Amino acid sequence: MKTVITLSELHQERKQLPEPVGLVPTMGYLHPGHLSLIRSARKDCASVVATIFINPMQFGPAEDLTTYPRDLSRDLKLLEEEGTDLVWIPTTEIMYPPAYQTWVTVDEVSKRLEGEMRPGHFRGVATVVSKLFNATQPQKAYFGQKDAQQVIVIRRMVEDLNYALQVVVCPTLREPDGLAMSSRNSYLNPIERKAASVLVHSLRAAQTAYEDGERSAENLRQFIWQILASEPLARPQYVSCAHPETLIELDGMVENGALLSLAVVIGKTRLIDNLLLSDQSLQLNYDEKEATQIER
Amino acid sequence: MKTVITLSELHQERKQLPEPVGLVPTMGYLHPGHLSLIRSARKDCASVVATIFINPMQFGPAEDLTTYPRDLSRDLKLLEEEGTDLVWIPTTEIMYPPAYQTWVTVDEVSKRLEGEMRPGHFRGVATVVSKLFNATQPQKAYFGQKDAQQVIVIRRMVEDLNYALQVVVCPTLREPDGLAMSSRNSYLNPIERKAASVLVHSLRAAQTAYEDGERSAENLRQFIWQILASEPLARPQYVSCAHPETLIELDGMVENGALLSLAVVIGKTRLIDNLLLSDQSLQLNYDEKEATQIER
Repeated sequence: MKTVITLSELHQERKQLPEPVGLVPTMGYLHPGHLSLIRSARKDCASVVATIFINPMQFGPAEDLTTYPRDLSRDLKLLEEEGTDLVWIPTTEIMYPPAYQTWVTVDEVSKRLEGEMRPGHFRGVATVVSKLFNATQPQKAYFGQKDAQQVIVIRRMVEDLNYALQVVVCPTLREPDGLAMSSRNSYLNPIERKAASVLVHSLRAAQTAYEDGERSAENLRQFIWQILASEPLARPQYVSCAHPETLIELDGMVENGALLSLAVVIGKTRLIDNLLLSDQSLQLNYDEKEATQIER
Repeated sequence: MKTVITLSELHQERKQLPEPVGLVPTMGYLHPGHLSLIRSARKDCASVVATIFINPMQFGPAEDLTTYPRDLSRDLKLLEEEGTDLVWIPTTEIMYPPAYQTWVTVDEVSKRLEGEMRPGHFRGVATVVSKLFNATQPQKAYFGQKDAQQVIVIRRMVEDLNYALQVVVCPTLREPDGLAMSSRNSYLNPIERKAASVLVHSLRAAQTAYEDGERSAENLRQFIWQILASEPLARPQYVSCAHPETLIELDGMVENGALLSLAVVIGKTRLIDNLLLSDQSLQLNYDEKEATQIER
């Protein structure tokens, strides 16, 4: 495994990689969710490139940029064990030199949910992902379903900007109690950690209701709100039952599937999670033939 | 020469092109300036891709989108004669399908001069050029010095977004009386056409003054204004003597070169032109080793 920092080192090494190249962009502090992305890329592609970059442009001024967890030597060890070929670890100065002034914005799907709670977040995400795509020139790029809106924004960007690559979405990995794996789970103290499973429990309750025939989007949201309310440590920010591509909140009945998603603050930690309520036609949107099966 | 319209045809043909690939983006109605870009690409690259697309997103609502000159069969004949390998002629529907919502903006250098007169113009340019880069994946891309600010915006975008390609700038080609070649010159009636040479004459007068030792940016602008004022048909929109990378208007003395540029309306036709006042260090900025020599 080669590890590079500068763009010229990256270009040098990239040239020598057999194609197709699979890209796994990360902010480091890797957990099994990240490693499942590497494993999918390893299975599909001749070469696997990972990036580790905590992108300041996707953090708001009051967010956790400075405290975001880091463990580079552990990350590199894990990436090597999974058979990664090349790791790019750019510095902030390399990514955003002083005269930097270019932004990629995906208008509509960036405005809602996370975008409403975190202004500028998806401009930062779209911009950095565009930079990673251009610099590493992958044929496939791997993202986790855990950040569902991020996936939707990136898919839209890839289609709109004519990137000649395939976005592969891998299922959310979960702890034994169902909590979605996230580097930010490390912020939780043991009491908060226990409370945090309310996110997935509320989503699964709504999913069960859906499977039992409930089709009212408002009722599905209310199921979730009620279960979140049963956990005193949980402060919900939003609960959404939305169209899985446009993210427009559903008003009446769920007809062609929906994305259930939520953001909840527990202690000082902001957590998100989601589940796809899907029928056949929706699966086709999410599930490229070569992609890992999406969690249902 | 292959001609393609859809993205999938393009990808199919692009795969088979030997690299390096040189891209020449155009809006068609080709003149010798365009053909000099093709010739430079032909000389430098194993394959030459040209695109013809009149990009609606870079035209303002009151601008000449609907009357912009077109002659596709003549363009294809000229491209073939110059040894172009592949021409992509996407439709507006292919480039901007109904759900389209992604934009590339280059903040600072887009605000001034043309950007001030044509709000949204450089957002349209940066977005479409980014799409053309992603779709055609060139190693080099060729642009004319005639659209100097466009070159500066695209260079900034390429650097900021980490595109792994080289921007090559080719000199402005001119008619015998000095008028910069432009598809829009076809709008001029014979009287206007004669008057239009005042643009280059005014720039050359300032250049002569510079070569004779004049270093005051304001005096250089005034030279140009005075000469433009001598042509009753010319309605100047701006006259600039600016830093050639930031486009910030120079206040005091020209110390490390400058970009002289102007926009003038003649009849109903808006024309632009520019000259680089350059010293050694500036040349290094503009003149990549492999690039065609920039006009001085």
